[in-house]
Amino acid sequence: MASMLSDIEIQRALGARTGWTRRGNAITRTYEFPTFPAGIAFVNRVAEAAEKMDHHPDIDIRYTKVTCSLSTHSAGGITQRDFKLAEAMDELLP
Amino acid sequence: MASMLSDIEIQRALGARTGWTRRGNAITRTYEFPTFPAGIAFVNRVAEAAEKMDHHPDIDIRYTKVTCSLSTHSAGGITQRDFKLAEAMDELLP
Repeated sequence: MASMLSDIEIQRALGARTGWTRRGNAITRTYEFPTFPAGIAFVNRVAEAAEKMDHHPDIDIRYTKVTCSLSTHSAGGITQRDFKLAEAMDELLP
Repeated sequence: MASMLSDIEIQRALGARTGWTRRGNAITRTYEFPTFPAGIAFVNRVAEAAEKMDHHPDIDIRYTKVTCSLSTHSAGGITQRDFKLAEAMDELLP
């Protein structure tokens, strides 16, 4: 099982991942797309990656903006699994 | 342009639509699915309907739960367009 990262480890990992910020026990990024369908297409790619990794982000769709939040509930905080999925999601951008 | 419904009109329309509740200037419903991919498939059907009607719900995905919120920002509140899309979404359930 992935173990919770310390505040310093989280800061360091966030420093290497543009666009992501910490919000309490989660890391979050808002992606913006030119159209609503483009955002939905991204959500589909994210969903496929998430299902494969068996790690599911919270996803908020606000027209052309898609906000993804990651936390490892079983560990009670932010773990390497969250940063792995964050990296995978960033690579799914058009 | 669709005009804002009165409180009484909203109450009446909600009475005819199981699962929907009012939250301030929006109507909202949480759908639950047996699996994460089933929820994502529903989001895709909703997105297609929304794009056709040029009216886009806020969509929050929380693992197998999908919450949709509808409001007509151009009218400053809840209109018939919201209830039309709510009905269309309910019909997209498996």
